[in-house]
Amino acid sequence: MGSGIGHERTGSGCSAMDLFDRHRQRLAGAMEAIADRRSWSAFPGSARAHPDEAEARRQGLAAFERRLGGAVDLGPVGIGRLVTQTSECSPFTGESLSVQYRRIAPDVLVGLAAEAGAAWRQVPSRARVGICLEIVQRLYDRAFELQAAAQHTTGQSPGMAYTGSGTNALDRGIEAISQAYTVMERVPESATWERPFGTTVVRLDKRFTVAPRGVAIVVCCASFPAWNAYPALFASLATGNPVVMKPHPSSVLQMAIAVEIAQEVLLDCGLPRNVVTLAVDEPENMITMALVQDPRVGIVDYTGGPLFGSLLERTVRSAAVFTETAGTNAVVVHSARNLQGMTRVLAGGLSLFSAQMCTSPQNVFVPRSGFATADGWVDYQTFCDALAASLDAIASVPVRAASVLGAIQAQRTVEMQAEVEKAVSREGRIVAASGTYEHPDYPAARTRTPLVAEVGPDRHHLYGEERFGPVSFVIPVDSPDAGLAQSVADARRCGAIASYVYSEDEAFLARSEEAFAAAGASLSANLVGPMPMNFSAAYSDYHVTGLNPAGTATLTDEAFVSGRFRILQSRRQR
Amino acid sequence: MGSGIGHERTGSGCSAMDLFDRHRQRLAGAMEAIADRRSWSAFPGSARAHPDEAEARRQGLAAFERRLGGAVDLGPVGIGRLVTQTSECSPFTGESLSVQYRRIAPDVLVGLAAEAGAAWRQVPSRARVGICLEIVQRLYDRAFELQAAAQHTTGQSPGMAYTGSGTNALDRGIEAISQAYTVMERVPESATWERPFGTTVVRLDKRFTVAPRGVAIVVCCASFPAWNAYPALFASLATGNPVVMKPHPSSVLQMAIAVEIAQEVLLDCGLPRNVVTLAVDEPENMITMALVQDPRVGIVDYTGGPLFGSLLERTVRSAAVFTETAGTNAVVVHSARNLQGMTRVLAGGLSLFSAQMCTSPQNVFVPRSGFATADGWVDYQTFCDALAASLDAIASVPVRAASVLGAIQAQRTVEMQAEVEKAVSREGRIVAASGTYEHPDYPAARTRTPLVAEVGPDRHHLYGEERFGPVSFVIPVDSPDAGLAQSVADARRCGAIASYVYSEDEAFLARSEEAFAAAGASLSANLVGPMPMNFSAAYSDYHVTGLNPAGTATLTDEAFVSGRFRILQSRRQR
Repeated sequence: MGSGIGHERTGSGCSAMDLFDRHRQRLAGAMEAIADRRSWSAFPGSARAHPDEAEARRQGLAAFERRLGGAVDLGPVGIGRLVTQTSECSPFTGESLSVQYRRIAPDVLVGLAAEAGAAWRQVPSRARVGICLEIVQRLYDRAFELQAAAQHTTGQSPGMAYTGSGTNALDRGIEAISQAYTVMERVPESATWERPFGTTVVRLDKRFTVAPRGVAIVVCCASFPAWNAYPALFASLATGNPVVMKPHPSSVLQMAIAVEIAQEVLLDCGLPRNVVTLAVDEPENMITMALVQDPRVGIVDYTGGPLFGSLLERTVRSAAVFTETAGTNAVVVHSARNLQGMTRVLAGGLSLFSAQMCTSPQNVFVPRSGFATADGWVDYQTFCDALAASLDAIASVPVRAASVLGAIQAQRTVEMQAEVEKAVSREGRIVAASGTYEHPDYPAARTRTPLVAEVGPDRHHLYGEERFGPVSFVIPVDSPDAGLAQSVADARRCGAIASYVYSEDEAFLARSEEAFAAAGASLSANLVGPMPMNFSAAYSDYHVTGLNPAGTATLTDEAFVSGRFRILQSRRQR
Repeated sequence: MGSGIGHERTGSGCSAMDLFDRHRQRLAGAMEAIADRRSWSAFPGSARAHPDEAEARRQGLAAFERRLGGAVDLGPVGIGRLVTQTSECSPFTGESLSVQYRRIAPDVLVGLAAEAGAAWRQVPSRARVGICLEIVQRLYDRAFELQAAAQHTTGQSPGMAYTGSGTNALDRGIEAISQAYTVMERVPESATWERPFGTTVVRLDKRFTVAPRGVAIVVCCASFPAWNAYPALFASLATGNPVVMKPHPSSVLQMAIAVEIAQEVLLDCGLPRNVVTLAVDEPENMITMALVQDPRVGIVDYTGGPLFGSLLERTVRSAAVFTETAGTNAVVVHSARNLQGMTRVLAGGLSLFSAQMCTSPQNVFVPRSGFATADGWVDYQTFCDALAASLDAIASVPVRAASVLGAIQAQRTVEMQAEVEKAVSREGRIVAASGTYEHPDYPAARTRTPLVAEVGPDRHHLYGEERFGPVSFVIPVDSPDAGLAQSVADARRCGAIASYVYSEDEAFLARSEEAFAAAGASLSANLVGPMPMNFSAAYSDYHVTGLNPAGTATLTDEAFVSGRFRILQSRRQR
């Protein structure tokens, strides 16, 4: 079925099979890391380690500046029209990015993707894998431009926009490509089957073809699109499906540039650019439902709020649906080696990107009678004070606040924080008050420091749902086991993406692991030190279990890729 | 998390880890066959090759006789009540089997399964695999009893009941166990993860646990339950899920005995019997919907009619749904090496188990101007006559008819055949008339010989849906390509599980493969000789593509097993 498309060298272009060879070593490294879940990355870990930092940064920022007020036009010219995106504003400057994108009707867009998909499915698996890995490389080559685009749409600090939305997200993308590659490689291309029937031996030549499911829609979230979108994009693409990227209307630019880069690679290989396309809408006229309900759509990936996520899980027919939504991530305190070590990492977790992350902790259950540490018994109030002090150590130093907290992506988050603050003034007590901090580089930045409120365990209406942003709760409980019971019940009912426990007692740790496991939640124990507690490592951490309401898609297990393609067979008798 | 349950030797019982070792070689053989799709079986291919045929058959038939009028009581005593199954009658004798089964309310049954599942999930993966393989062995040890049960519920001939519902079905079961094993084995149990953050190296001990999705419901079809039920049962069981088997009310006994055998193995290993349970209902009071909509259910496998199948696909929430329904399997005739070779195998396909199989051909597209063979041009009418003669050669010899056609499972099928016959008398023409044949052993057997009707390509209302049973259509078309176009359109819209083409022209074969592939259908070309054309080989043939309306589950690709479990992780900082 190989038609020659996409794996022959074209005039100015590149051969997809050459690309596979070029990136073969990177693929092998990823596959080894996936097999033993070791720490590995395809890239230097920080901007400073970039081989040509100063020049790359200068060029990247200049490229970003040129985007502002301009157009990212991915064609096709003559279909739809270029419209300035009014809902895309920088959380740092408060100004509209004023970028124009082409608006194309959902059914037209799916039609373009399906048409390009007919060519894409003919490209051999390895060639598709080569193209995907080349797209990853070119995304890395444009790291600083994409960093700026991520920063000025999501509100992430430059450091996080470079790693979390850059290298880490690309690593998760490579992980998805590698998983797709290994699962596809296990389907043999052909077989000879021989069996006696009576005295005659019947001999069949069989051929097996990896076949895509259909058009794939990737619905991205506003605050951290790349980290989930890259794995979804590459898992669907590598397995032969054309992809329509549908970014959140307030956070389009990074994904638009990513699509542009993917199209460059496709065109270089002599393939139709519409194998990867961009769908853009505005909040008052959303097109996601129209996209995902198109019968030509075979796969939907969704990252975002649980309300819309569960709507998709319930209403999408005939397409495989992969979701990551949200949970009420808990911290259960039983005991600790060291109070400061725990409150420092906890304050970091509550502060990092102003808790606009799916792994941010939210509900901290602390025994009201206090708890043991190696340095002696710690009172409940002493814990609260230490946590507040650790938070303040971040928020009160602007340069530190800027690098940790970043800015607030959506005005709605600021309002939600105010609403919780008001409710808590009646029903609880403030452990750490929220304010703004003065961003050293962007005086107009929308900033909020973390609000930490104490509420009783009976105030489930306050802490029993995800509060997306810098809002968390300290919940005094009668015992560590009471905290464990409540947090496990919440994981089961409200979902959990990351759960945390602190205990020096082996029996309590074992009990916690078992209880969270029974509720379908993963657990991290006794995290301290410089690693952010909510860090999730590509190639190593299975992200989202699929066993509680926080989503159905695991980054990146085999089920994340194996359902994106099917197998066609052809049997011929000799 | 290993609790010791199920892998310690109990008094009279067996150790599950010993079972894994005992069956390790069989597992290795299956894994090799899956990897290269060679012909392989764990068992001798026919009853005659059974190591102790005469005695085993005598014992098996005696055991079956003892079942009649008795009870298969799988407990628990005190819950529900034993009721004689009135809808289960032998298609051979016409008499009720009069077996009593325990009727348990769906929610109670799911509760029992969930409770037993708590112990089952603690059993290590390899131990579960060992138990599954032991169940397979004991099903084989009871081959003749199960054969008789299959025969007298489905209407299959003894030979087919022994192989198709016996060894072949068990091979597909072993295939599912092997796939589950290899997918689970690729998840490492633990890892040490080390990464520098600044000047500090953070070290995490990670543990990964295969976690089941929930209670699995296996909804079986009436005419061929084992072939789909065994793979579903074992795929869910091996991955840690408790299973409720829900046979069709007219075809319970074989699955009831299979559940009894599974429970014996579980009890021998010191595990709760309710890890595998049986749900029984009657046609006037069906419980499948209540079962599959229980929120504790995580997996649903369904084999049966497309109407109910698509209802499940649309309505089941929160559970993974695997279906095999039906299609309008086509035969496209372009040219042939040899007329007789083709019509003989075609007549076999139309006759085998009276076409009560998901792979039975239904719509035969033949150029009305005839077609080429190595022996010269063949007129359309000559083809029809040769096909009718080949059919008659089977149907007119009672002992041959008995072994090929078997009996008709459901009275409804006889009525459907009469309805089509009536319609065709107005709208088409009879190529081969249907009648009964006299069964040499069972004078009361419900038999029907194949009805083959000629209808024009415009009579889509007659041939454009599955006619389950001995009804097929010869459709004269203007050209081979017209036949190809219609059959491909039907595969896309009405589904296809198996599609067939006859052509000596490489270009037409390539065009056919491409066209069926584009419609999401697999294709077999030029099948002649002693292998039944609709034979599907375990370990080699991917059965059901999931890319057309005939179902979503492929026997047995990795997607069939990888979605049945998820991965929980536990991270501890050192």
